[in-house]
Amino acid sequence: MFYLVILGTAGSGKSTLTSTLYEWLLDHELTATTVNLDPGVEELPYVPDVDIREFVDVHDVMSKFKLGPNGALIVSIDLLASYINEINMLINDIGSDYVIIDTPGQMEIFAFRDIGPYVISNIARGKTCIIYLTDSFFARSPSQFASVMLLTASTQFRFNKPQINVLSKSDLLSRNDIERTLMWIDDPETLSNAIEEEVRGINRELSLALANLISHLATVSQLIPISSIKNEGIDELYAGMQRILCAGEDYFTE
Amino acid sequence: MFYLVILGTAGSGKSTLTSTLYEWLLDHELTATTVNLDPGVEELPYVPDVDIREFVDVHDVMSKFKLGPNGALIVSIDLLASYINEINMLINDIGSDYVIIDTPGQMEIFAFRDIGPYVISNIARGKTCIIYLTDSFFARSPSQFASVMLLTASTQFRFNKPQINVLSKSDLLSRNDIERTLMWIDDPETLSNAIEEEVRGINRELSLALANLISHLATVSQLIPISSIKNEGIDELYAGMQRILCAGEDYFTE
Repeated sequence: MFYLVILGTAGSGKSTLTSTLYEWLLDHELTATTVNLDPGVEELPYVPDVDIREFVDVHDVMSKFKLGPNGALIVSIDLLASYINEINMLINDIGSDYVIIDTPGQMEIFAFRDIGPYVISNIARGKTCIIYLTDSFFARSPSQFASVMLLTASTQFRFNKPQINVLSKSDLLSRNDIERTLMWIDDPETLSNAIEEEVRGINRELSLALANLISHLATVSQLIPISSIKNEGIDELYAGMQRILCAGEDYFTE
Repeated sequence: MFYLVILGTAGSGKSTLTSTLYEWLLDHELTATTVNLDPGVEELPYVPDVDIREFVDVHDVMSKFKLGPNGALIVSIDLLASYINEINMLINDIGSDYVIIDTPGQMEIFAFRDIGPYVISNIARGKTCIIYLTDSFFARSPSQFASVMLLTASTQFRFNKPQINVLSKSDLLSRNDIERTLMWIDDPETLSNAIEEEVRGINRELSLALANLISHLATVSQLIPISSIKNEGIDELYAGMQRILCAGEDYFTE
């Protein structure tokens, strides 16, 4: 079994990609299990085979623990850890080629606390690929792009697993914008210049150090523009997954 | 008026620092206004002078728009933008030396969408210092430290304002741990070696690029360990704020 873990900030398109990948795998005569780990999600574009909401209900948590929405979401996500065995049993009973794990809507209370890495390492116990989504809309300018790439790098160091970075909703950007964005990765000098043009008074050494880091990151984690609406980029994403899952690569090495 | 914007991930201690800073400023014969921008917070350790909850109530949003907690939090934070004028009028009527702005519990749905930078640039219209909190507990190992520093850098590029990075709850780490952490910043080679020792198979060039970026960042944004429990680090934080607010520095330059 191969595990695909879908991560990204709120609204970046995690559930949509889960659904798209699931359909894509089935269309290619592979089997897949969808796992929803978000106890607070109200509607999903797919019917999860394994659903944390059967074990944890955020509305119950609100009333039982007398919590507001913030607190209830945090407690519900922490409760995830108690159901790892149940989730693993359900996944193993289905026994498909791929297991697609859709993570909680707000990444921060999952990935940037101890719970996310703990849960993922205990569920995704075989070959695993993290697919990290960035909403294209928030990568428009050089400084925004720098910010989102730093966030993806931050996730990479939290989970310490092979990661593919995806620019989701790429239909929101023009082809020129996408090409310019990909060029920023290939050529640190171009990105550094673009940042300095945009951000008043930025330190030259800092902007270069940043552009260098982003460029080095790209050599270990690709950045793939995808659009679920236009159905673009999924073939390339699958090829990237295969390189990670089947080539037996170590984390972070080429 | 000087503006202090308190940012950080859920549970990093934003409201506690708001309260501690407020008391500290009053003890030093300065005046301060506290502004709560979190529509979803249930309890605060201070009584806010200006409170977004008087305009937006997350429980009302849940029932009025028939939303779950996730959706209600996002909509409530987006509604913030409609009350900028009212908030500014209240702040100006009080007219204190400092305005301390406590931001929503979950940073992701505020800072990593367009709403956060928009709201902050429209409220904090004078000299502003962002105080970014990282919970010491999540900076224990070299890779965790790298991850949190990348997140702080990401915030810096989102808001494009002078930023002081604070290691909150420093009482959770031993003095040795704190010193080791601060050494990782001063000497990129040490951090890079520590990451390579911890993370299996990491690319040498990537770990060095990362350590270099962190070291360059530290030359423009300090990292100050503070403990509200032990009342440590607040004097140093105030000194850092003063350098930014009174020296007329440009963003990101020394």
